[in-house]
Amino acid sequence: MQEGLKMKITAIKYSATMQRIYELESLEEILALQEEKFVLWIDITESAIEELSPLKSLFGFHPLAIEDSVQVEKRPKMDDYDEYLFVSAKTINTGEEGISTGQLSIFVCKYILITIHEKQLKGIEELKERILRKKPLLLKGKADFLLYMILDAIVDNYISVIEDFEDKMDEIDEEVLENPTVRTIETIRMLIRQIRHMHRIIRVERDVVDKLERSDTAIIKPETKIYFRDVYDHTSTLLDSVDNIQGNAEGALEVYHSSLANKMNEIMKMLTTIATIFIPLTFLAGVYGMNFRYMPELEWRWGYFTALFLMAVIGIGMVIYVRKQKWL
Amino acid sequence: MQEGLKMKITAIKYSATMQRIYELESLEEILALQEEKFVLWIDITESAIEELSPLKSLFGFHPLAIEDSVQVEKRPKMDDYDEYLFVSAKTINTGEEGISTGQLSIFVCKYILITIHEKQLKGIEELKERILRKKPLLLKGKADFLLYMILDAIVDNYISVIEDFEDKMDEIDEEVLENPTVRTIETIRMLIRQIRHMHRIIRVERDVVDKLERSDTAIIKPETKIYFRDVYDHTSTLLDSVDNIQGNAEGALEVYHSSLANKMNEIMKMLTTIATIFIPLTFLAGVYGMNFRYMPELEWRWGYFTALFLMAVIGIGMVIYVRKQKWL
Amino acid sequence: MQEGLKMKITAIKYSATMQRIYELESLEEILALQEEKFVLWIDITESAIEELSPLKSLFGFHPLAIEDSVQVEKRPKMDDYDEYLFVSAKTINTGEEGISTGQLSIFVCKYILITIHEKQLKGIEELKERILRKKPLLLKGKADFLLYMILDAIVDNYISVIEDFEDKMDEIDEEVLENPTVRTIETIRMLIRQIRHMHRIIRVERDVVDKLERSDTAIIKPETKIYFRDVYDHTSTLLDSVDNIQGNAEGALEVYHSSLANKMNEIMKMLTTIATIFIPLTFLAGVYGMNFRYMPELEWRWGYFTALFLMAVIGIGMVIYVRKQKWL
Amino acid sequence: MQEGLKMKITAIKYSATMQRIYELESLEEILALQEEKFVLWIDITESAIEELSPLKSLFGFHPLAIEDSVQVEKRPKMDDYDEYLFVSAKTINTGEEGISTGQLSIFVCKYILITIHEKQLKGIEELKERILRKKPLLLKGKADFLLYMILDAIVDNYISVIEDFEDKMDEIDEEVLENPTVRTIETIRMLIRQIRHMHRIIRVERDVVDKLERSDTAIIKPETKIYFRDVYDHTSTLLDSVDNIQGNAEGALEVYHSSLANKMNEIMKMLTTIATIFIPLTFLAGVYGMNFRYMPELEWRWGYFTALFLMAVIGIGMVIYVRKQKWL
Amino acid sequence: MQEGLKMKITAIKYSATMQRIYELESLEEILALQEEKFVLWIDITESAIEELSPLKSLFGFHPLAIEDSVQVEKRPKMDDYDEYLFVSAKTINTGEEGISTGQLSIFVCKYILITIHEKQLKGIEELKERILRKKPLLLKGKADFLLYMILDAIVDNYISVIEDFEDKMDEIDEEVLENPTVRTIETIRMLIRQIRHMHRIIRVERDVVDKLERSDTAIIKPETKIYFRDVYDHTSTLLDSVDNIQGNAEGALEVYHSSLANKMNEIMKMLTTIATIFIPLTFLAGVYGMNFRYMPELEWRWGYFTALFLMAVIGIGMVIYVRKQKWL
Repeated sequence: MQEGLKMKITAIKYSATMQRIYELESLEEILALQEEKFVLWIDITESAIEELSPLKSLFGFHPLAIEDSVQVEKRPKMDDYDEYLFVSAKTINTGEEGISTGQLSIFVCKYILITIHEKQLKGIEELKERILRKKPLLLKGKADFLLYMILDAIVDNYISVIEDFEDKMDEIDEEVLENPTVRTIETIRMLIRQIRHMHRIIRVERDVVDKLERSDTAIIKPETKIYFRDVYDHTSTLLDSVDNIQGNAEGALEVYHSSLANKMNEIMKMLTTIATIFIPLTFLAGVYGMNFRYMPELEWRWGYFTALFLMAVIGIGMVIYVRKQKWL
Repeated sequence: MQEGLKMKITAIKYSATMQRIYELESLEEILALQEEKFVLWIDITESAIEELSPLKSLFGFHPLAIEDSVQVEKRPKMDDYDEYLFVSAKTINTGEEGISTGQLSIFVCKYILITIHEKQLKGIEELKERILRKKPLLLKGKADFLLYMILDAIVDNYISVIEDFEDKMDEIDEEVLENPTVRTIETIRMLIRQIRHMHRIIRVERDVVDKLERSDTAIIKPETKIYFRDVYDHTSTLLDSVDNIQGNAEGALEVYHSSLANKMNEIMKMLTTIATIFIPLTFLAGVYGMNFRYMPELEWRWGYFTALFLMAVIGIGMVIYVRKQKWL
Repeated sequence: MQEGLKMKITAIKYSATMQRIYELESLEEILALQEEKFVLWIDITESAIEELSPLKSLFGFHPLAIEDSVQVEKRPKMDDYDEYLFVSAKTINTGEEGISTGQLSIFVCKYILITIHEKQLKGIEELKERILRKKPLLLKGKADFLLYMILDAIVDNYISVIEDFEDKMDEIDEEVLENPTVRTIETIRMLIRQIRHMHRIIRVERDVVDKLERSDTAIIKPETKIYFRDVYDHTSTLLDSVDNIQGNAEGALEVYHSSLANKMNEIMKMLTTIATIFIPLTFLAGVYGMNFRYMPELEWRWGYFTALFLMAVIGIGMVIYVRKQKWL
Repeated sequence: MQEGLKMKITAIKYSATMQRIYELESLEEILALQEEKFVLWIDITESAIEELSPLKSLFGFHPLAIEDSVQVEKRPKMDDYDEYLFVSAKTINTGEEGISTGQLSIFVCKYILITIHEKQLKGIEELKERILRKKPLLLKGKADFLLYMILDAIVDNYISVIEDFEDKMDEIDEEVLENPTVRTIETIRMLIRQIRHMHRIIRVERDVVDKLERSDTAIIKPETKIYFRDVYDHTSTLLDSVDNIQGNAEGALEVYHSSLANKMNEIMKMLTTIATIFIPLTFLAGVYGMNFRYMPELEWRWGYFTALFLMAVIGIGMVIYVRKQKWL
Repeated sequence: MQEGLKMKITAIKYSATMQRIYELESLEEILALQEEKFVLWIDITESAIEELSPLKSLFGFHPLAIEDSVQVEKRPKMDDYDEYLFVSAKTINTGEEGISTGQLSIFVCKYILITIHEKQLKGIEELKERILRKKPLLLKGKADFLLYMILDAIVDNYISVIEDFEDKMDEIDEEVLENPTVRTIETIRMLIRQIRHMHRIIRVERDVVDKLERSDTAIIKPETKIYFRDVYDHTSTLLDSVDNIQGNAEGALEVYHSSLANKMNEIMKMLTTIATIFIPLTFLAGVYGMNFRYMPELEWRWGYFTALFLMAVIGIGMVIYVRKQKWL
C-alpha cells in the first residue's frame, strides 16, 4: 500500500468460461476486480503484519485473524466470523535437514478467497496453473470449492512426506538387522519425534476439515460439503499410515534391543564355554608344574600321558556338559 | 460400454420365486433388467474408473463415490446420498506372503445393489451360488437384505484370517520356549503389525455397520436393522479375538526376554562358579611352581600332599559357598 | 419335540404362595403351564438349534435370537424385541485346566422366562432350590425379578473365580521372591491373559446390566430397576478387584525382572572380585615360575618370602579396593 | 431394638441456637427427637444388618440400601430415592500395617441424617465436638449442609494419608540412590499398589460429590451445591497429588534400574580391565615357564630382564588401550 | 481495614481517555472510586484471609470464593456467581531451584476487576504500565477485556518457562551422548516430573479459558469471547510444545539405556576376545610347564619352536574365529 512494499499479490479471477491472472501492487486494487459472477482468488506472499492491515478496512476482517495469518507457530484452525471464514493450515515440506512446516492462512468470503503464506508453495502454484488451463472440474463452484481444492492440494502434499518417512523406515529396518549402533537408536527416536509431530498436525487439520463440513455457515454450500468429507477420509487414511510407520519404528527399537541382548548372550556363552573347559585344565597343569620334591606321579613312566589323558577326559566331559546346556 | 471393454459384469435377478443370472456386455443393459418385484444384484470386477462413468448418467451416482469405488487404499466407510448408499468395505485374504487386503465397493439403491471389486472374491461367489440354489432365507428382503448378506460374508471371511493368526501364534509360543532367536522377535513384531492392521480394519468396518444400523435412510428397512446388529456383534467378537492374539503376542515378547535374561543368569552363574573355584587354586599351584631356591615347603616330605589337601579344602569350601549362593 | 429328543426341559412355576417343578417332554407343553398369576421359568439344557425352533412359532422369538442362544462364542448382550428381551450372559467356571466359560441365554417375557445353556450350572440349580424352598424375597416380582436373581447368581459366581485368581497371585508372589524361573513368567503371563479375558467379560456384562436398568421396556418394572443397579454396583466392585489383581501380576513381573538383574549384579561382583584379586597374583607367581637361567631374585635367601609378602600386599590391597567399591 | 443389642446410637440435635447430644438405646427413640426446626444427626456404630432393619419400617428406607450400609467392600456411591439420599463413602486410615479402608454409609432426609460405620472415626468425632462447641458456620443449613461437612471431613482425612505417602516416597528416593535392593523394588511396587487403590477411591468419591452437586433432588438445596463444588475441587487437587506421587514412584523404579545397569557396567569394566592386562602377561610368563630343553631365550644373560621389559611394555600398552576405551 | 494492616492495595482507574493509579489504605476506599464509565482494577498483594473479609460485605462475594483466593494449592478454575466471576489461575516462575508456582485469584464484576496474589508478578506490573502509557488497544472494553489481558499476560509468561525447559533438554541430549551417568537419569526424571506438572497446569488453565469463552454470563461480552478463543489457541500450542519436550525427554532416556547396553556389549566382546585367545594358550604353556620326568616333547630339538608355532596357529585361529563373530 505504500512505496517500499515487499509483499507479492497475485489475483486469479475465474468462472467456468473466463480465467485471468493479475499481479497487484496494493491490496486496494482487489476491490476493482470483485464481480459477483466470478471467483476471485488473492494469493499473498512475503507479507508483514503491517502490510496486511488494509484487510481490516477493506473487508472488515477481525484484527486477531489478521494477526494470526502471519504467525508461524499456529495450530491449524477454522474460525467462523459469519461474513467470512478464517482457516489456518499447516504445509509440510521435506528438505535436506528433515521436515519443515509452514503456515497457510485463508480468508474465505462468498466470492473472494485470500491465501496468505510466507513462501511460494508448490501445491498452490500447481493449482493456479490448473485453473488457468481450464480444468473443467476445478472451475465449478464458488470460493468454497476453491477452498476445498486448496486443502486437497495441501493434504496431497502430505503423502510425499509420508512416503519419505516410509523410505527412511525401510533403511532403518535394514540397519537394525545388519549394523545396529547407538546412532541407529537416535535415528529411530528422531523419526518417531517427527512422526508424532506429523500425526499431531494431520489430526488437527482433520478436525478443521471436519469443522468445515459440519459448520452451518452460509459460505460453504451443502453440495460442497461432500468434498470436504472426501478430504476428511483422505486425512484419516494418512493418519492410519502415520500410525503404521510409528508402530514399525517402535518395533524396530524392540528388535534392536532384542538383537543386542541376543548378541550379548552369544558372547557370554562363548566366554563361559572357553572358561569352563580350560580353567580346570590349566589348574591341573599348574598342579603338575609345582616344584615339590616328592611328587610321586611325576616320576611315573606314564605319568605325563596319564595326565594328558585325564585332561582330555575332563576337557571332553566339559564340552559334553556345555553342549547339553546348548551353549555351543 | 465401448469395444475393448475389459470389465466383467454379472447380474443376478431374484425374488422368492425366481432366480436368474446374466452376463452383461455393458452397464446400459442394467436398465432393461430392472423390475420392482425383483432384487437386481450387479457384480462388476476388473473395471477401470473410465468404464464406470455411465453409473453417473444411469443412476445419478456422485462422481466422488464412483472415484472411491476403484481406489484401492480406502478406509471402510458408508455415505448416505439419500437415493442410494455408498458402502466401502475391506476384504482380507491370507496368501503365501502374509495377508493382503482388497476393496469392495457397494452401491445400494432400493431394488438394485451394485458391487465393484478388483478380483473375484470367494465369499461373493459363494453367495451368488447360494442365491441361485434358492436358499429360502437369502431370498427374503430387498437390496438392504442383500447388503447384509454381503457384509456378513466379508466378516465371515475375517474369521479364517484370524484363525491363521492364532495358528501362527501357537507356533511362536512354542518357538519362544524352545529355540528363540532374533528372527523369532521379528516374526512376533510382524504378527503384531498385521494384527494391528487387522484390528484397525475390523474396527472401522464395525463403525460402518453401526452407522448402517443407526442410519435413518429409507433404503434400510427397520426389520433388516436387527441383522446389521448381528453383524455388529459378530465384528465385536472378532475384535475381542484380535485383542486376545495381540495380548498373547506381547506376552510372548515378554517371555522371550525373560527367558533370555534367565539364560544369561545361568551362564554367568556357571562362569562365576568355575572361576571362583579354580582361579584361587590355580594361583596356589602357581605359587608352588615358582623357582625360588629357598622354598622350605617344597622340601617337606608331605609337602605335595599337604598342598593337594589344602587345595581340596579351598575347592570344597568354594563349592559350599557357591551352593549357599544357590548358583548350582 | 420329536422322539430322539435329547434336550432337557425343566419348568418351575411359582408365585408367593405356590411353587412347583415340572420335567417337560417338549416345548409345546409350556403353553399349558402358562398362567398370568404365576411366574413360569423354563430351563433348557443340552439343546441343539433345531430343537429350539418351536420357540419361534410358540412365542414369536426372532430367528437370530434363537440362533444366538446356542452359539458358544458370544459376547454378553441384551436385545429388546418389545414383546420380550433376549439377554445373553457368560458363565465362568474354574476347573483343573484354568477357567472355562459358558453361555447362558435368557428370553424374558412378562410372565415367562426361558433360560438356555449347555450344561447344568451350579448357580442356576441353587436358585431353583431356593425358589422351591419358598425364600420369601425371591418369590416377589415377576419375570423381571427372576431375571435379576439369575444375573445376580451369575455375578456371585464370578467372585469365587476371582478369589481363585487371588490365591494364584499369592502363590506367584512367593514364587517370584523365592524361586523364580521362566515358568514363573509364563504362569504370570497366563494369569494376566485370563484376567484380561475375565475383565472383558465382566465389563460387557456390566454394560448389559446397565442397559437393562436404563431400558424403557415394559418388561422391566421401575421398582425392579434398583436391583439391576445393585448388580451393576456389584460388577463394578468386581472390576476393581480384577484391575487390582492385574496390577499385582504386572508388579510381580517387574519384581521378577528386578530380582534377576540384582542377582546378576551379585554374581558379577563375585566374579570380578575373585578375578581382581587372583589374576594379578597368578601372574606374579607365573613370573617367578619362569625358567630363565639368570633371575637374581630366585637366588635370594628371602626371595620366596619376599614374593609371598608382596603377593599378600597386592591381595590385601585389592580386597580393600573391592570393598571400597562395595562389591563385597 | 431388642435386649442384647450391641450397636451404639448417638443423636445430635442442633439448630443455630441449640445443640444437644443423646445416647439412644434403640432406633425407635429417634422418632421422639424429630422436630422440624432442628437438624437431627444419628450416628450408628458397630451395628449388624439385623439391628438396622427398623430403619425400613421407621423411615421407609429400601432394603437394598440398608444392606449396602453394612457391607464393607463397597465402592463409594450415591443413590437418590426421592424421599432420601443414600450416600456411601470410603474412609482411609494409615495404621502400622499400611493403609486400611472403612465404609461410611449416610442416609440423608430433609431434617435427619443417619451415619452408619463400623468403628469410631476421628473426623466424625471432631465434627460432633465442633457442632456442640457452637461453631457458627457449621450450624447453618439443614441435613444437606451436614452432609457437606461430613464429606469434607472425610476428604480432609485423605490429605494426611497422602502426606504419609509423600514421606514414604522421600525415603524411597533416598534408598534408591544409596542402598537399592530387591526389597526397595517391592516397597515401591507396594506403594504404587496402594496409590492406585487410593486413586480409585478418590476418583469414585469425586464422582459421588459431582453427582450430589448436579442432582436435582429436593434434599440438596441450591445454595448448598457450591459447597459440594468446593469438595469436588478439593478432591481434584488430591487426585493431582496422588498422580504426582505415582509419577515419582515410577520414576524411582526407573532410576533404580538405571543405577543397577550403571553399576553392572562399572563392574564389567573392572573385570575386563584386569583380564585384558593380566591374561596376556600370564600367558607370556607361562611360555617362559615351559620346561623344553632347548629354549634359547632362557639361556640369555638378559633374558629375564628382557622378558620383564616385554611384559611391562605389553602391560602399559594394554593400560593405554583400556584408558582410551574410557574403562578406567 | 484496621491498623497494622499489611496488605498492599493498588487501584487503576481507566477509560479510553483517562488513566490514573491510586494506592489505597483500605478496601472500603474502593467504593469511592467506582464510576460506571471507567474500568476499575484493584490489585491486592500480601493479604491474609482476615483482611479480605470486607470483600463479602462490600461486594457480596461468597465466603468460599474469598477463602479460595488466598489458598496457595488450588487448581485453576472459574466459578460463575451471576453477579461476578471468580477466576483462579496459576503463575509459573523459574528461579534458581527449578520452577515455582503461584496463585492469581481474580474477581470480575462488570466494571471492577480485583486481582489477589501473594507477591508482585512481572506480567501484572507490565500490564499496569502499559495501561498507564495509554496503549490504545488495551483501553478498549470493560472488565472482561481486562480479564483477557491478564490471562494473556499469564500465558505469555509460560512461554519463557517452556523455553527454559527446551534449553535444559538440549543440555541433556548432549550429556546423554557424551557422558551419561545415573545423575543424568535423575535430571531427566526431574525434568519429566516438572513437565508433567506444567502440562497439568496449562491443561486445566485452558479448560478455564474455554469455560470463560463458552459461559453465558453477562459479564463476558460476545465480542470479547473471540479474544478468549485466542488465548485458548495459544495454550493449545503451548501444550503441543510441552508434549514435544516430554517426548524428547523420554527419547533421551531410551537413548541412554541403549547406549549403556551397547557399551556393555563392547566391553564383553573385549573380555571374551582376550579370554578366547589367551586362556587356551595359557593352558598349553601350562602343559609344557609340568614337571613330569618323561615328557618326550620336552627333549625334542625343535620342541620349543614347535610349541610356539602351535600356539601361534591356535592364537591366529582364535583371532579369525573372533573376527568372524564380528567381536573385533
